[in-house]
Amino acid sequence: MKKIVTIGGGTGSFTLLSGLKNYNVDLTAIVSMADDGGSTGRLRDELGVLPPGDVRQCLVALSDSSEKLRELMNYRFPAQGGSALDGENNGLGGHNFGNLLLSALEKINGSFTEGIKEAARILNIKGMVVPVSEQEMNLAIKLRNDKVIIGEQYLDHNKDIRKYGVDRVFLRPKIKANPLALEKIKKADVVILGPGDHYGSIIPNLLVQGVAKAICNSRALVVYNCNLTNKKGQTEGFDVDKYAQEMNKYLGRDRIDFVVFPMNRPSKKLIVKYEKKEGKNSIVKFTKNTGIKRSYRVVLANITNRKEIKKNKNDLIANTRSFIRHDSKKLAKTMMLLSERKEYRRMIKEIV
Amino acid sequence: MKKIVTIGGGTGSFTLLSGLKNYNVDLTAIVSMADDGGSTGRLRDELGVLPPGDVRQCLVALSDSSEKLRELMNYRFPAQGGSALDGENNGLGGHNFGNLLLSALEKINGSFTEGIKEAARILNIKGMVVPVSEQEMNLAIKLRNDKVIIGEQYLDHNKDIRKYGVDRVFLRPKIKANPLALEKIKKADVVILGPGDHYGSIIPNLLVQGVAKAICNSRALVVYNCNLTNKKGQTEGFDVDKYAQEMNKYLGRDRIDFVVFPMNRPSKKLIVKYEKKEGKNSIVKFTKNTGIKRSYRVVLANITNRKEIKKNKNDLIANTRSFIRHDSKKLAKTMMLLSERKEYRRMIKEIV
Repeated sequence: MKKIVTIGGGTGSFTLLSGLKNYNVDLTAIVSMADDGGSTGRLRDELGVLPPGDVRQCLVALSDSSEKLRELMNYRFPAQGGSALDGENNGLGGHNFGNLLLSALEKINGSFTEGIKEAARILNIKGMVVPVSEQEMNLAIKLRNDKVIIGEQYLDHNKDIRKYGVDRVFLRPKIKANPLALEKIKKADVVILGPGDHYGSIIPNLLVQGVAKAICNSRALVVYNCNLTNKKGQTEGFDVDKYAQEMNKYLGRDRIDFVVFPMNRPSKKLIVKYEKKEGKNSIVKFTKNTGIKRSYRVVLANITNRKEIKKNKNDLIANTRSFIRHDSKKLAKTMMLLSERKEYRRMIKEIV
Repeated sequence: MKKIVTIGGGTGSFTLLSGLKNYNVDLTAIVSMADDGGSTGRLRDELGVLPPGDVRQCLVALSDSSEKLRELMNYRFPAQGGSALDGENNGLGGHNFGNLLLSALEKINGSFTEGIKEAARILNIKGMVVPVSEQEMNLAIKLRNDKVIIGEQYLDHNKDIRKYGVDRVFLRPKIKANPLALEKIKKADVVILGPGDHYGSIIPNLLVQGVAKAICNSRALVVYNCNLTNKKGQTEGFDVDKYAQEMNKYLGRDRIDFVVFPMNRPSKKLIVKYEKKEGKNSIVKFTKNTGIKRSYRVVLANITNRKEIKKNKNDLIANTRSFIRHDSKKLAKTMMLLSERKEYRRMIKEIV
């Protein structure tokens, strides 16, 4: 059975894992612990626990339990005013039930990893969810004006970041990897980076001591699911090659084997809608012939969801996802084809 | 299979059900919805849900799941100051995880009864837990000075109650019974009242429209587990007969068949300890020959826990229980003997 390790966090991992769990593979989801906003941030502050939000999403993705139990995990207690916006309330409001479950289990078991194992049993999950570190993780964001901002939560909502742009991110202080995460990477047949927020979800994993090195030294096939859209002040103007180069930079050497990117541009309607919100050129482009020799191969595949998804107050995951996004089944199928290394030339549109 | 319905709430029901679940019986726990203090009270206020605390205790008692899952249900989030005292915090602190589970399930399922069914599946419970009503329940406490206090939470902590004493309790407004509770009572072979707090747990059930009448009209054997200790201002100076008469008064007629009471007085050490805290004569007495003809039979049986239990911050149920209390196994055995109506004369010490 192929050993597949995914590295990420948030809704990107949710999408990928929801698809991969339907294959007969040995799955491990390594999850960033950098999240410090919303319900998760309040739990970190109030209870001194590790951030449960990303782990919860991965557990739900891998769960084989009833729809009701999955709905329960994602249930968010309403703020007293009635809405369910994150962080609007300092009582129970805005807290996510699954986050509370993971925090309670961490407290009872005395370790986040043990707590997750217990949750995995309750949710009957396929595979394993492993926090990248069991130490407190604080993302430091260095801007191009040399200012340093601490806190993953500020990435998307900070004026200075939007104005000056991110130079690089690092962890302050440095923290050690969860030994289980390193072991799983070491034994992996395939390591999949992303999809996920570039600075918010994927890179924080690579910043944890030992992780990038373990990936570089492993014999695994390393696949990178490139982002579909750019973020102002963060990945502004990035194209596929820039993303891949950045990822290799944080890995420490040119380790990526395949970069996976959609073979089709989003519909004109979606592009207009998206650029209206995020600015011109906010949709990632790929240029086949750049004249520069690539250390990786770019796989163009049918991996996006072409349907427009309406926002839905009962589907919080849909709400937090960009409407230009990966399709769970198509993405998983492409990952499996790459993993098997067979026939992918026929199945996948194009490999550059 | 004997159909046994227990009526109560709180730790008394927990004790009884923990014992009864080991017998091959069809168990239904009907639970009061009067609780409005602590974590439960805050959930009622903040989320507009029905009170989960008593239901949670019954679910845990009947659960066949792992010790870990039971521990999780009773886990209380620490107050930010560090202690786990009820209601000390208006954030997450003091909230009980199981209460949050039940409240989230009520919200998701749109009904408390449906939410409980879902929790029962998760916890793999034996039998059924049925809230006595699905309407909001407010206990009104009329004092002997005619003052009326609204709120079950005030019973144990109100100066006026301790000074003037409770005349009677009622519900304001009147509320209708859960049809499922009435159906279960109608079909019961045995209805067991208590053990539990007199005005706080048992009687509130009888105040719900239809419940007392259903018990009176049922063909069930009606057993009443009399309280072991009195409460100042509430049941001050009550003896076994006074408790039974009160219970029959709230039932509407002399319906109780058996009143069960310990055959042994607590140890002198326990009596001294208890009376030091609660005052002289705070331990319930039974007088065999009062000269008055009883409408019920008093069963004196070996039903108490003779061991002294140390308070334990990890065992919140032990902490909230009086240290003069019923023994789960012994109590259940006595209930079963009475249910079977056979050989109980030999097994039970004495029937008056």
